[in-house]
Amino acid sequence: MTRAGSHQAKLRVHRTQIAMNANDRDTAEGILFTDQYQLTMAQLYFRAGIHEQRAQFDHFFRSYPDYGKHQAGYCVNAGLGTLLDWMRRAHFRDEDLAYLKAQKTRAGRPLFGDDFLTWLKRYGGFDAITMRAVPEGHVVHPYAPLTVIEGPLANAQLLESALLNQLNFQILIATKAARIRESSQGRTVLEFGMRRAQDKGANAGTRAALIGGADFSSNAGMSHVLGFPPKGTHAHSMVQAFIAMGGSELDAFRAYAEVYPDDCLLLVDTINTLESGLPNAIKVFEELRRKGHKPTGVRLDSGDLAYLSIQAAKMLDAAGFPETSIVLSNQLDELVMWQIAAQIRDEAPRYGVDPENVIRRLVYGVGTNLITSHGDPALDGVYKLVSLERNGVWVPAIKISETPAKTLNPGNKTVWRLYDQRGLATADLLCLGEEDPRQLEWLILRHPTDHTKFRSLRQNEISSFEPLLVEVLREGQLVYELPTIEHMRAVRQRDIERLDAGVRRLINPHTYHVSLSQKLWDLKQKLIEEAQAQHAIR
Amino acid sequence: MTRAGSHQAKLRVHRTQIAMNANDRDTAEGILFTDQYQLTMAQLYFRAGIHEQRAQFDHFFRSYPDYGKHQAGYCVNAGLGTLLDWMRRAHFRDEDLAYLKAQKTRAGRPLFGDDFLTWLKRYGGFDAITMRAVPEGHVVHPYAPLTVIEGPLANAQLLESALLNQLNFQILIATKAARIRESSQGRTVLEFGMRRAQDKGANAGTRAALIGGADFSSNAGMSHVLGFPPKGTHAHSMVQAFIAMGGSELDAFRAYAEVYPDDCLLLVDTINTLESGLPNAIKVFEELRRKGHKPTGVRLDSGDLAYLSIQAAKMLDAAGFPETSIVLSNQLDELVMWQIAAQIRDEAPRYGVDPENVIRRLVYGVGTNLITSHGDPALDGVYKLVSLERNGVWVPAIKISETPAKTLNPGNKTVWRLYDQRGLATADLLCLGEEDPRQLEWLILRHPTDHTKFRSLRQNEISSFEPLLVEVLREGQLVYELPTIEHMRAVRQRDIERLDAGVRRLINPHTYHVSLSQKLWDLKQKLIEEAQAQHAIR
Repeated sequence: MTRAGSHQAKLRVHRTQIAMNANDRDTAEGILFTDQYQLTMAQLYFRAGIHEQRAQFDHFFRSYPDYGKHQAGYCVNAGLGTLLDWMRRAHFRDEDLAYLKAQKTRAGRPLFGDDFLTWLKRYGGFDAITMRAVPEGHVVHPYAPLTVIEGPLANAQLLESALLNQLNFQILIATKAARIRESSQGRTVLEFGMRRAQDKGANAGTRAALIGGADFSSNAGMSHVLGFPPKGTHAHSMVQAFIAMGGSELDAFRAYAEVYPDDCLLLVDTINTLESGLPNAIKVFEELRRKGHKPTGVRLDSGDLAYLSIQAAKMLDAAGFPETSIVLSNQLDELVMWQIAAQIRDEAPRYGVDPENVIRRLVYGVGTNLITSHGDPALDGVYKLVSLERNGVWVPAIKISETPAKTLNPGNKTVWRLYDQRGLATADLLCLGEEDPRQLEWLILRHPTDHTKFRSLRQNEISSFEPLLVEVLREGQLVYELPTIEHMRAVRQRDIERLDAGVRRLINPHTYHVSLSQKLWDLKQKLIEEAQAQHAIR
Repeated sequence: MTRAGSHQAKLRVHRTQIAMNANDRDTAEGILFTDQYQLTMAQLYFRAGIHEQRAQFDHFFRSYPDYGKHQAGYCVNAGLGTLLDWMRRAHFRDEDLAYLKAQKTRAGRPLFGDDFLTWLKRYGGFDAITMRAVPEGHVVHPYAPLTVIEGPLANAQLLESALLNQLNFQILIATKAARIRESSQGRTVLEFGMRRAQDKGANAGTRAALIGGADFSSNAGMSHVLGFPPKGTHAHSMVQAFIAMGGSELDAFRAYAEVYPDDCLLLVDTINTLESGLPNAIKVFEELRRKGHKPTGVRLDSGDLAYLSIQAAKMLDAAGFPETSIVLSNQLDELVMWQIAAQIRDEAPRYGVDPENVIRRLVYGVGTNLITSHGDPALDGVYKLVSLERNGVWVPAIKISETPAKTLNPGNKTVWRLYDQRGLATADLLCLGEEDPRQLEWLILRHPTDHTKFRSLRQNEISSFEPLLVEVLREGQLVYELPTIEHMRAVRQRDIERLDAGVRRLINPHTYHVSLSQKLWDLKQKLIEEAQAQHAIR
């Protein structure tokens, strides 16, 4: 085998041919990680002299992920830490400005003016941005602002694409992970999705999965960055390699046990799970036991996972290994997992096996369906202008749509979660910034679009009011202590436990109420009427 | 507005709290961008003394994306340039090794030995890897190896996760883009997906979309890196901002036209497309014309896009702007686009409009459905050990599955595309490395799993043989000139044109034949029988 020269030297010979170099990566992942129209709009605001006018944008989603045969009844917020990290690094480097300077109009003239580029260089980053946000891990619902950006119009506009990209994806994956966790019924969930993930999006996906419900991930680098031990077993290729070298599955297992005597988790389906893999694994486990080690378990990756789990548990118990885990993988998702547990409960007694003794040792390795949010691979999160400062006064902005649900909830808002006397969340209430719903004897909760639908709640029907938005950035300064992933997980767990059982249901969940305060409802109606009147006049 | 201090200084105050710093990014995106089990398997091979045994792995997929109501009949290969770039940069840095050194077994002992870590530092990269691959842009089919990795067992194993991650995703997106291009029937396709993409996976998605069928992208940074002008219009927020400042939609359009007189493409649905947006756009276009500029067009983002396109074309024509484009966006995919064109053909005459005069000016802006491959967000690509060198002789490796389609095609293979007398691709033929199908009078094309299915072709029925795999790396040395994206697009276009119309069909396509040569078929049967016999003995 030739070992001359470092691999860098070799592969760099043709470096210029290669698609992307380190500087290209900084270009593609820095402040130009945006849609072109954000840049042209920013210049337009600059030319119109309104680029430093203070504006407020809300980030929210309109509908829960719908996976086809099943739907989410809540989402889990995630991505804020990643976004803040990106914002911290993003600024207009000289290379970025040189690129913009080189862009041409259709008529061949420079697209961007030097004065605007000078402004971008000096002020184009995010140091004047003020942000309120729902902390990561919280359960969140449609229409309630999750992130509220306030800042100069041009800067707030320039943030849109990267913000939506990073937050929408992590909310999507954290939500899927929460559902998978629900379905695991307390068993360990491992995120195994890298090979089917979206290039480097895999890392954001791993982070979101760990916030939303996965206990650990197989992703080595990202687990390290986030402070979690990465998890894994071995692949079929290991067994194949020993066989191709003239050995056997048993040889492969023995080699594995010798190297990893205290972490011996064997994949048993390379040849035949019941006739070869499990007997060989048990043989090796017995050898380990004689040497004073405790084997970890087996992994099943094909066939009828419920039936094979029962048989594996039975064989492992008979051999005196009741503590070994059974890791399941192969196209799992929340419905498949639920079905597997149900089938085990149904079928195990037929083989003289206590089903709970099978289920308690299960570990779920979930790949593709988690990391892609299979069934609904995008969250419909949007970022909308809701208010603009004019002569020192905030003017609420509205956008009317023929689809009433798409008409914006205008102005500067707060979001309060209301808990009922059982201590369960009963509604998220959107209020105007100056309102304090805790001061009202009677609360009117208006449906966001249907004027015939509202609820009245007396103050004493509400056990507590939780404000969901916290201040994160004040003019670019971080004024919020970023929590650990563990803390986010605790928040998620607590929030899910305080949902009504119907909202937690995996299929056809009950609809959680997101409501407008009477004052916000009134403002919205007034703005709709004004806009319609203005339109009718012209 | 406070402008004191650079944003870096401000946001860096709390730097340690933030989820990921630059070094973390290198950790998460470098050689540890892998599944943990690749590292533990590599150590096992090291301990067993087989880590430098030469091995061959095939990357291939088993099924075309199935979007539910429609299915792909072919895929477009993509991602190789990105993978080579990653391989060039990936190596075990001291930080990576320190992290591995700190990992512990369940018993609290170091998981990785110092000798193995020393080997990783020196030899753990990809400088001993030899690679053959199908160049990007080619049409590809299931079971045919797309990338063949040959190298020391441990290194080839360590490459698996990153290779699958990068290639699977780009093939998936390039395939979706090719379908969208087919449906565009020659009109321009713009990739608009960043806001719904998977964090930084957006950039790989943009690259794949440009290879597969998008003409341009809105992604500013990645377009720059790849040498394409980024495209875009403006958002609703621009119109909203002018209204909130006391102005009107017309004021917003005028401001836009003033800044971008030669690139004036106006979004006309913020208030009402037919009653406000289009009349205002036409007013501004007339003003531009008087100043000697040619307006670009309008964008429709809501409502019945087919009906509104007809009306927009009619109004623009009546005002003397027959050259203006009509950009459509809003949840487009290949089926929606097809339906819109069909509806225009059907409905336009009713309004006295020539449908082709509407369709020829359409431009499709495709976001979510392209960048997520909506309907099937993952390609099932796998990476399988097919051969291992033993005492200087290559031994083919097999893995048998109860699902016959999952039983590997063993050994070192070549892939030939056979063209019929019409010049259309008729089959991909997998041969053993030493075979040359051009030398055979009669070719037997065996179905990969069903022994009753085969075709016989006489040499003169085949107009040409195209070998699909080219040598890319020879022991880490790039021996292949990486083509430009434009070249990849030309390859894609040519390959798609040489598919049978039935294979190109968007819904329920005809199945393209991927076959085994008689020799490969014989080897596979022999290995299956040997494996079954060996298993029966034990």
